[in-house]
Amino acid sequence: MKILALAGGVGGAKLVDGLAQILPPENLTVIVNTGDDFEYWGLKVCPDLDTVCYTLAGLANPDTGWGRADETWHVFESVTALGGDSWFRLGDRDLGLHLERTQRLREGESLSEITRDFCQAWGVRPTVLPMSDDLIPTMVTTNEGVLPFQEYFVQRKCQPRVSGFNFMNIERSEPAPGVLHALQESDLVVICPSNPWVSIDPILAVPTLKSALSSRPIVGVSPIIGGKAVKGPAARMYRELGIQPSALAVAQHYQNLITGFVFDTVDVAQDDDIRKLDIQTLVTDTLMKTSYDRRRLAQDVLQFYEGMIVSSKKFGGKA
Amino acid sequence: MKILALAGGVGGAKLVDGLAQILPPENLTVIVNTGDDFEYWGLKVCPDLDTVCYTLAGLANPDTGWGRADETWHVFESVTALGGDSWFRLGDRDLGLHLERTQRLREGESLSEITRDFCQAWGVRPTVLPMSDDLIPTMVTTNEGVLPFQEYFVQRKCQPRVSGFNFMNIERSEPAPGVLHALQESDLVVICPSNPWVSIDPILAVPTLKSALSSRPIVGVSPIIGGKAVKGPAARMYRELGIQPSALAVAQHYQNLITGFVFDTVDVAQDDDIRKLDIQTLVTDTLMKTSYDRRRLAQDVLQFYEGMIVSSKKFGGKA
Repeated sequence: MKILALAGGVGGAKLVDGLAQILPPENLTVIVNTGDDFEYWGLKVCPDLDTVCYTLAGLANPDTGWGRADETWHVFESVTALGGDSWFRLGDRDLGLHLERTQRLREGESLSEITRDFCQAWGVRPTVLPMSDDLIPTMVTTNEGVLPFQEYFVQRKCQPRVSGFNFMNIERSEPAPGVLHALQESDLVVICPSNPWVSIDPILAVPTLKSALSSRPIVGVSPIIGGKAVKGPAARMYRELGIQPSALAVAQHYQNLITGFVFDTVDVAQDDDIRKLDIQTLVTDTLMKTSYDRRRLAQDVLQFYEGMIVSSKKFGGKA
Repeated sequence: MKILALAGGVGGAKLVDGLAQILPPENLTVIVNTGDDFEYWGLKVCPDLDTVCYTLAGLANPDTGWGRADETWHVFESVTALGGDSWFRLGDRDLGLHLERTQRLREGESLSEITRDFCQAWGVRPTVLPMSDDLIPTMVTTNEGVLPFQEYFVQRKCQPRVSGFNFMNIERSEPAPGVLHALQESDLVVICPSNPWVSIDPILAVPTLKSALSSRPIVGVSPIIGGKAVKGPAARMYRELGIQPSALAVAQHYQNLITGFVFDTVDVAQDDDIRKLDIQTLVTDTLMKTSYDRRRLAQDVLQFYEGMIVSSKKFGGKA
């Protein structure tokens, strides 16, 4: 069974890691959000892409959810001692990637080519693809003006009140090479438990990607558990947009796109309402604290889909 | 007494440090070679400028003569693990400077402005100026073709046989702001014990700088001791160019430019030949192993010059 996963940062990377634990590497392709990408210290920074790759490479920092394990901060200390920008922290080991990537981009290589080479160097065997090689910066509309995502998220610590999002340049963008092919080859698309507004929506908004997705069975996994986001500003964004954050709200977000939806047992009371959206459901433990949790949730998602196929064959239901 | 020092890397930085130990900071300006500057990992690298600044800031690595003390190499490890360039080593703490400088150059600031700010941040009080804000890459003509200096020096480890040097773009270059003013204000110009071919000659070749220099009393200090360079390829270059490396050869190199010449006691036998060039001499210990050595040599140079003034007044001699 070939799986295409759509992922943002930490939560997405964890489920991707779970899928990588159980699938042959040639059967897993990950499309990663690049809307958060920005330039800092003159370097191209791709937070979600790097979190996914570092996680699969076993290099991720388990405490922060971003950057590398066993990190040092000597470059950062030097830069800030000279009065340089300090609102975004890049560790020393992590900087090696950023320098090499930026250099190769300047020499004309694409982000997808560079990501492929880096994964190969790290021994990451599933295919990891940026959603696009084009720049598609996510802009956050707030009560303090329109802010690039990382300025809203890291520099301003999500303090400005959100009223909307805009993915700049998206109409003219194309999926990265390999994305459409992987989609056509896939048996199932998994929307990982990432922020629907700023991690998954940018991927879904890439023009030809969205239309190609509509032909595939898609299972979404809720990033909201008990009304809260495990990490990041998803719940806060729902509230500021006037929506009660919940598994139901996420299911509604993906309505007409997903066939199945996986959410946490603490939210079981929402099951009926979600089923009323004509979405099949799996209620299970979705919090991934350990490596085993990742694998178990991945297994649950795949078995859920297999059950959907069986029921579809038996009863001619939607699958 | 206002001193203008012309310096390259390690040897020059040591004498500059000695001068800084005994002069009020407002009385010392250092003009540093930028012919070695190049781009690496997409960053602007200024080896001589950084060695001088780090030395004056007390941040220099005493073992290597370049880079910073108490250094780590995690960025380098990451870059090379990804297949990036590895022929030039930049340490983590050192990289902070390179990132911040490159970023500010891209934003339109000049090398001299950035250097001034960095020195201020480090508490370096003498004035340190790059010879020029223009790019003047030193090209080394060898039996294996024309090579940029750092490729000859670091990447090829001085293996190609040298037959000449070319300072690209030098005719169109200008001294950095402040250089000519510091020169006009100076009582004495000290040519530090740096490589005459690739550290001092590029400075001397900056068009308006050379003509302004001809009006000042100049004392040179030999980088060759007992036929050898303390550090770097100066002696090798002399040999490959068909000249026996010696204090005399250095004095001849600077003939018609310098009024006085300081060289090591081990080369005292060359004193007569050097004096025959119409150059006054000081024979003293020039090897700088300790901080005290730097200070002592600086003191010797200044006293030598003071003696030249006195004798000039007494006897109407050249000074």
